[in-house]
Amino acid sequence: MTYTLVLLRHGESDWNAKNLFTGWVDVPLTEKGRQEAIEGGDLLKEAGFLPDIVHTSLQRRAIMTANLALDAADRHWIPVKRDWRLNERHYGALQGMNKSEIREKYGEEKFMAWRRSYDTPPPEIEFGTEFSQDQDPQYADLGDQLPKSECLKDVVERFLPYWEEGIKPDLVDDKVVLIAAHGNSLRALVKYLDGISDEEISGLNIPTGQPLVYELDESFEPIETGGRYLDPVAAKAAAEAVANQGKK
Amino acid sequence: MTYTLVLLRHGESDWNAKNLFTGWVDVPLTEKGRQEAIEGGDLLKEAGFLPDIVHTSLQRRAIMTANLALDAADRHWIPVKRDWRLNERHYGALQGMNKSEIREKYGEEKFMAWRRSYDTPPPEIEFGTEFSQDQDPQYADLGDQLPKSECLKDVVERFLPYWEEGIKPDLVDDKVVLIAAHGNSLRALVKYLDGISDEEISGLNIPTGQPLVYELDESFEPIETGGRYLDPVAAKAAAEAVANQGKK
Repeated sequence: MTYTLVLLRHGESDWNAKNLFTGWVDVPLTEKGRQEAIEGGDLLKEAGFLPDIVHTSLQRRAIMTANLALDAADRHWIPVKRDWRLNERHYGALQGMNKSEIREKYGEEKFMAWRRSYDTPPPEIEFGTEFSQDQDPQYADLGDQLPKSECLKDVVERFLPYWEEGIKPDLVDDKVVLIAAHGNSLRALVKYLDGISDEEISGLNIPTGQPLVYELDESFEPIETGGRYLDPVAAKAAAEAVANQGKK
Repeated sequence: MTYTLVLLRHGESDWNAKNLFTGWVDVPLTEKGRQEAIEGGDLLKEAGFLPDIVHTSLQRRAIMTANLALDAADRHWIPVKRDWRLNERHYGALQGMNKSEIREKYGEEKFMAWRRSYDTPPPEIEFGTEFSQDQDPQYADLGDQLPKSECLKDVVERFLPYWEEGIKPDLVDDKVVLIAAHGNSLRALVKYLDGISDEEISGLNIPTGQPLVYELDESFEPIETGGRYLDPVAAKAAAEAVANQGKK
């Protein structure tokens, strides 16, 4: 008995293209991002990894990625679950700011700490400002759980309860589960599944639009550490592109 | 206490554009159909009818319509339910055939009976043929409920249990419910809600991409018979276009 889990990071968004910190700001995919999603769905179909259920964040770039990939894979009709705990990491006061400018202004060390350290959150966002989510109806029920800024550790802490309550039961129910989410919510999951240390996780980049398949054993341990990209060559190139963000 | 229900028929599909009988064949929207869906979502947003939950059929033209309309209305993140009982009427052996050719070959009377009579199903499709759904995974659980052909009466009979079990509980839960579905599954619902006779329903055409809002009282009776289109002028023109399908 093994469980099959497929992870899919959304394709390029408007603000990826503009090199801005995005976090919880709900920007759409670019045309390139839509194409990445469709190609991800084509890969799923060709490889025969056909999701029985999909979990998405509440953010349109992940939702649209799931919609387009599933349509391409002829699995548009499967059940859908959405949860804020699959959202991207909240980038605090950096949301809406240019990555290269932040890098120049604050220097390489601080920039990389905010982007990649496990437990250093960026400065907090102020509620009521343009890129805060305190007025968004989809988060109205969160109360004081609504983040003002998150480090990866915070994402792990909010994500894991959803893994236990939301996702594992579908795997146990023998469903092929697709998670369409974000760079950091997926890094949180991969860190947990593969037992990656707080230090080593900083070097792990998840490529956009590349289906990553984990076969898990009965204890939800990966049969192959790191899972398996359906298109390993494209995935490697895409992960390097992510790692180089903010560089000139 | 009133309940709010919004009906949305999918926009133009590939086979609408080609004037073919579609039924359960899972064709995509055209670019025009995608645009209709987005405009339907814009209307919802402008009018402030913001769905809390969406119900769709298992067919990609309704699913994509819901996806695009909800994205346009900033409601992409709401919960989703899908059910085959919201599917279009099964057009039997006519699926994949040209409407004008069928009209010429069989004559106006038979053509209109198959399209619009309440209880005359088209000839049955043969399982195993190109446009049958007996091999489609989304219908694998239907067993002998899988239709070979349906008249509107058949659609009413399979739809009403879903109305009771699937949709009413969400209305009672005080949710604004969006149903993204098809010409005949929505006619079945409108017939039931407005108490339209078996004869009169033949003259009712539901326009594509036009949100139709029903406010219902505590007994689920429409407060205004026929509901209310958010753009009545465009809806009237679109309904006439549907009525004229198959004419030269």
